[in-house]
Amino acid sequence: MKGFAMLKIGETGWIEKDRPKCGPMDAICKPLALSPCTSDVHTVWEGAIGDRHNMILGHEGCGEVVEVGALVKDFKPGDKVLVPAITPDWNSLEAQAGYSMHSGGMLAGWKFSNFKDGVFGEFFHVNDADGNLAHLPDGVEVQYAPMLSDMVPTGFHGAELADVQYGDSVLVIGIGPVGLMSVAGANLRGASKLYAVGSRPACIEAAKFYGATDIINYKNGPIDKQILDLTHGKGVDKVIIAGGTVDTFDEAVKSLKAGGKIGNVNYLGEGTYIKIPRAEWGVGMGHKQINGGLMPGGRLRMEKLGSLVACGKLDLSKLITHKFNGFENVEKALMLMKDKPADLIKPVVII
Amino acid sequence: MKGFAMLKIGETGWIEKDRPKCGPMDAICKPLALSPCTSDVHTVWEGAIGDRHNMILGHEGCGEVVEVGALVKDFKPGDKVLVPAITPDWNSLEAQAGYSMHSGGMLAGWKFSNFKDGVFGEFFHVNDADGNLAHLPDGVEVQYAPMLSDMVPTGFHGAELADVQYGDSVLVIGIGPVGLMSVAGANLRGASKLYAVGSRPACIEAAKFYGATDIINYKNGPIDKQILDLTHGKGVDKVIIAGGTVDTFDEAVKSLKAGGKIGNVNYLGEGTYIKIPRAEWGVGMGHKQINGGLMPGGRLRMEKLGSLVACGKLDLSKLITHKFNGFENVEKALMLMKDKPADLIKPVVII
Amino acid sequence: MKGFAMLKIGETGWIEKDRPKCGPMDAICKPLALSPCTSDVHTVWEGAIGDRHNMILGHEGCGEVVEVGALVKDFKPGDKVLVPAITPDWNSLEAQAGYSMHSGGMLAGWKFSNFKDGVFGEFFHVNDADGNLAHLPDGVEVQYAPMLSDMVPTGFHGAELADVQYGDSVLVIGIGPVGLMSVAGANLRGASKLYAVGSRPACIEAAKFYGATDIINYKNGPIDKQILDLTHGKGVDKVIIAGGTVDTFDEAVKSLKAGGKIGNVNYLGEGTYIKIPRAEWGVGMGHKQINGGLMPGGRLRMEKLGSLVACGKLDLSKLITHKFNGFENVEKALMLMKDKPADLIKPVVII
Amino acid sequence: MKGFAMLKIGETGWIEKDRPKCGPMDAICKPLALSPCTSDVHTVWEGAIGDRHNMILGHEGCGEVVEVGALVKDFKPGDKVLVPAITPDWNSLEAQAGYSMHSGGMLAGWKFSNFKDGVFGEFFHVNDADGNLAHLPDGVEVQYAPMLSDMVPTGFHGAELADVQYGDSVLVIGIGPVGLMSVAGANLRGASKLYAVGSRPACIEAAKFYGATDIINYKNGPIDKQILDLTHGKGVDKVIIAGGTVDTFDEAVKSLKAGGKIGNVNYLGEGTYIKIPRAEWGVGMGHKQINGGLMPGGRLRMEKLGSLVACGKLDLSKLITHKFNGFENVEKALMLMKDKPADLIKPVVII
Repeated sequence: MKGFAMLKIGETGWIEKDRPKCGPMDAICKPLALSPCTSDVHTVWEGAIGDRHNMILGHEGCGEVVEVGALVKDFKPGDKVLVPAITPDWNSLEAQAGYSMHSGGMLAGWKFSNFKDGVFGEFFHVNDADGNLAHLPDGVEVQYAPMLSDMVPTGFHGAELADVQYGDSVLVIGIGPVGLMSVAGANLRGASKLYAVGSRPACIEAAKFYGATDIINYKNGPIDKQILDLTHGKGVDKVIIAGGTVDTFDEAVKSLKAGGKIGNVNYLGEGTYIKIPRAEWGVGMGHKQINGGLMPGGRLRMEKLGSLVACGKLDLSKLITHKFNGFENVEKALMLMKDKPADLIKPVVII
Repeated sequence: MKGFAMLKIGETGWIEKDRPKCGPMDAICKPLALSPCTSDVHTVWEGAIGDRHNMILGHEGCGEVVEVGALVKDFKPGDKVLVPAITPDWNSLEAQAGYSMHSGGMLAGWKFSNFKDGVFGEFFHVNDADGNLAHLPDGVEVQYAPMLSDMVPTGFHGAELADVQYGDSVLVIGIGPVGLMSVAGANLRGASKLYAVGSRPACIEAAKFYGATDIINYKNGPIDKQILDLTHGKGVDKVIIAGGTVDTFDEAVKSLKAGGKIGNVNYLGEGTYIKIPRAEWGVGMGHKQINGGLMPGGRLRMEKLGSLVACGKLDLSKLITHKFNGFENVEKALMLMKDKPADLIKPVVII
Repeated sequence: MKGFAMLKIGETGWIEKDRPKCGPMDAICKPLALSPCTSDVHTVWEGAIGDRHNMILGHEGCGEVVEVGALVKDFKPGDKVLVPAITPDWNSLEAQAGYSMHSGGMLAGWKFSNFKDGVFGEFFHVNDADGNLAHLPDGVEVQYAPMLSDMVPTGFHGAELADVQYGDSVLVIGIGPVGLMSVAGANLRGASKLYAVGSRPACIEAAKFYGATDIINYKNGPIDKQILDLTHGKGVDKVIIAGGTVDTFDEAVKSLKAGGKIGNVNYLGEGTYIKIPRAEWGVGMGHKQINGGLMPGGRLRMEKLGSLVACGKLDLSKLITHKFNGFENVEKALMLMKDKPADLIKPVVII
Repeated sequence: MKGFAMLKIGETGWIEKDRPKCGPMDAICKPLALSPCTSDVHTVWEGAIGDRHNMILGHEGCGEVVEVGALVKDFKPGDKVLVPAITPDWNSLEAQAGYSMHSGGMLAGWKFSNFKDGVFGEFFHVNDADGNLAHLPDGVEVQYAPMLSDMVPTGFHGAELADVQYGDSVLVIGIGPVGLMSVAGANLRGASKLYAVGSRPACIEAAKFYGATDIINYKNGPIDKQILDLTHGKGVDKVIIAGGTVDTFDEAVKSLKAGGKIGNVNYLGEGTYIKIPRAEWGVGMGHKQINGGLMPGGRLRMEKLGSLVACGKLDLSKLITHKFNGFENVEKALMLMKDKPADLIKPVVII
């Protein structure tokens, strides 16, 4: 079969591979729609997970089941399915402790285009089909389904980690596709004032659509200065970090009230230490909780988030700015993510 | 001063009283808008809290401060304010434990038209002004402000007690004004499928506006039967009870998945026991959590919920079906609540 | 192989069966120590789970692995293991939602001597060995290990459901072996005053050993009356129910403060409704949370609780009043549980 | 009246002041027992809270009420009382949000020897007596009561922030008096393996008494290296930081499992940033939650923790290594805290 792969750090290309084998609990799927992720860019061009050779890329997509293992009960060939980027081993100690995304080790619930081939192949392998696939619900268009693999669950997890509650004022740092879903997620947990940090017009428009009440441009000065001005020195109740660097935490902590919470869902690629400012963190005692976590994957999460789209309560249309038809355009779509033109939020490839 | 009062069980009328005295931490307000509550009906005509004589009714309203005590820091005469139905003693042990509504004893955070005169007077007294009043935010119309006293916080508390999460299927039993706010509250915490039980067209229309996806008419058979049909035997993730009787819990438990939660905000006026069906409650071990609680009041709650309205994230216009002008119409408004014409959701009196 | 079985409702006996088959994720074990449970008594003589024919009894024991399936990674023949009474399907939707004990349906994580043969056989089958077995830790004697199957996790779950916190006053109703472990569990979560309800001297002595500060004899009047007397009318912070009937909830609710929590781990065998007293439950709004749940099983739970015993922080010696040697004495031990002599807490059979 | 005061940064001495005035909600007390705190040392000799002039020191003590304000209901002259170091304004927005220790601003619930005179005077002032004092329970000796002001609630809060659960492996960094109470607190929430970091023999002995199972000497190499060795590379479930510097977080994060939690109760006096190691924090996504918070004060907390001592479930005798009699010895006791002889844990002065 054909797949679009990372050949080595800094290099991509089309390769031929054997179709993956299906274990007794697993499924083999063919993609129906795919989307590249900034993580694919980190993987290939920044060596974020170390070197990989001829590894098929991609962890965002939906598909059709073509084969299932003997122990699979709830899926059969022909079923259309949502596929999460994170596919845990559900019987692991970590999953039993509530952290399935770290099953088998920190971040190790992430398997596609990390420990095995990703979804940018003619076929892809899903471990534990009953535990990790979900039936594509009526009312979810195939073109939007790949957004449920990673952008929605990651963005929404930011709002969960920040523990947004009714009427909270929330700062969302970063309004790329994940940040936009953090805005939508905070809004769907009852945020009132929602300050979104970004500068690209396409993203700003989408942020307002998803519930942002105020836009902050980081080019106008430190975020915390702007937030403290806007809130009369009080700061916000919660912060979601969906962009930036290890330095961003400095601004986040300074923007936050005592008793507030930070939820980070941003991949931090560089820097030895994350910067938590001592004084504004209450000299260790300010009750400013710092959370950062990989998205929860698996079947239940896909069903829950899929149902929000199916019920019309989450509209994913504003996320997708570029559409392609045909498997071969996965390459073009990935290059778009790499080049990030000003009008890009997410591209999708329909197959 | 004049006030509209419960004279004794079963009887109301206008009375003259001295203007209330203002303690060092307190405020005296005059009403700007008022609304009667079904609880006023329970109090007068059902003797829900026992007998009371010449007690001014009402606990839903907004006002203008006319006097404050010497220790009050954040409010002054002329300030327009939101006033919660529940005004706790914040230094009580119960409030320190997180249950301010029970400060001084179970349910004893409820003081207006219970332990002291209510808000249907030319003036009313608010204990602990700094702790219990909130400034009326820009963007909240006076006519909607009384909905923030009780309907919004009570309805939303149902969704908090039921612990609604992203993508949950939620059953809301009862779509009077509290139930409608439970629908809105569940929707604002990320419910997907939202089954609302009711029959009056005005309420059904409002329920759909606030996020209900399916309407269940209890006249078509037991709620649990209908829910199990609609969910292919699975039941719902969460149930909010905002209407009914002690028998309603039977249907609620039967409608609920193992691991689900019930949040009751309905006043239960009759019956010795609440009925929890033993078998469907998992013979004691089904993890179907049963919660029931009086709304949280106080200043922070008012500020948080007020900000949702001010930001345009909660539209209260669909709650109010009848508007009156002039203090004297409080009586008419209360009689409407008693008689419950088919097209009534809530009346409001603007002063 | 030989097994001690329920022949039909009301009748037990020794039977011959084929040794169970081992699936790819499973293990076959032979018992090292076994203990009968009151649930076995309910199953056989009360028909608690309906009729069963020639089903081997027992769900409390530890064992030695004799065979593992091809996909099992962490266990091998010869390993000594803790075995939980509840052995979930970890990839089920219920387990993903945090309720593994209800995997596949309410209470359906309970498989031994319910949906399949139990542990009172020469060999027994464990589904998902990696997910459900735990290595017997150094420092845990084989004779005490069966207490970790059910008595400890069930009793401790009562304290979790009641959410015991530092300095809470806690009422534990019932001080059979589960109740004693609820006392120990409440104590290990920081309870201060610990009122234990029981009458048998052996149990009272053990209750004091495990942290009870006051003993209440239900023969001296309603529990709630005694509790309100002892607490100057305030009631307790939390209640754990580990004995009694559907009527016990009446006394539990009446004994509890507003804002308190009840954790039930008692099997309720009879009665249509559980009795929640309307008035003392705050006419629906007293924030007295009612929880009831089957114990969490699985490997992580076994490891965590096993480590408490291994570290010397939980002493199980006071639970076991009767010891037998030899597999054939499982019958005698079960009859003891049925007859409940005054000096019995738990019997154990060492093999 | 006489008081032992900070004259300016770096200088202490006895001063004369007027007896404090009693507001309507307040109490004036005279001390029965007092204890100096390392924070007093930070305040005077490190300028931790900036300069102060002629401010009476001390925030650990118990006392006898000599005067109460007109609105005080539950205390009267002659009452013996526990006094928390943190005395919140309970009606503040922060307290309503659950963070009373930050009432009026981050850390501003701390008033004694910070914003007003402390307890090392012949008389001291307590704001909101009903909300912040607790009756000295029978069974709590006056000499131990000052430990309930700060050492116990602060140490125990570390275990709350780290969210210790049954069977958790816990690392406690620092076994001065606060760290010892974190050990005791972790043990009282069900920790099994309890690794305590320290080197002084007196502290090590006390740590073992309070539940430590393993002692780690930081002089033998980085804590994380030692922990990973002891746990076969897995790390611990939870970390409590009760000593060290901003660098300590580096070792804490590296010692912790994915999905683990850190609870800091250590005052961080120096350094611009707290060091969170990027890679071991899961490049932002490891679910290693970082908490740090000032102790909760107030009456309920005092009652709850006092009851643990009164019930014999927390033995404070191992905390106190040096006893003095007579008010004038407060000076000697403080100098001991400053000089930290090897055999010191805490001194107490009985009056």
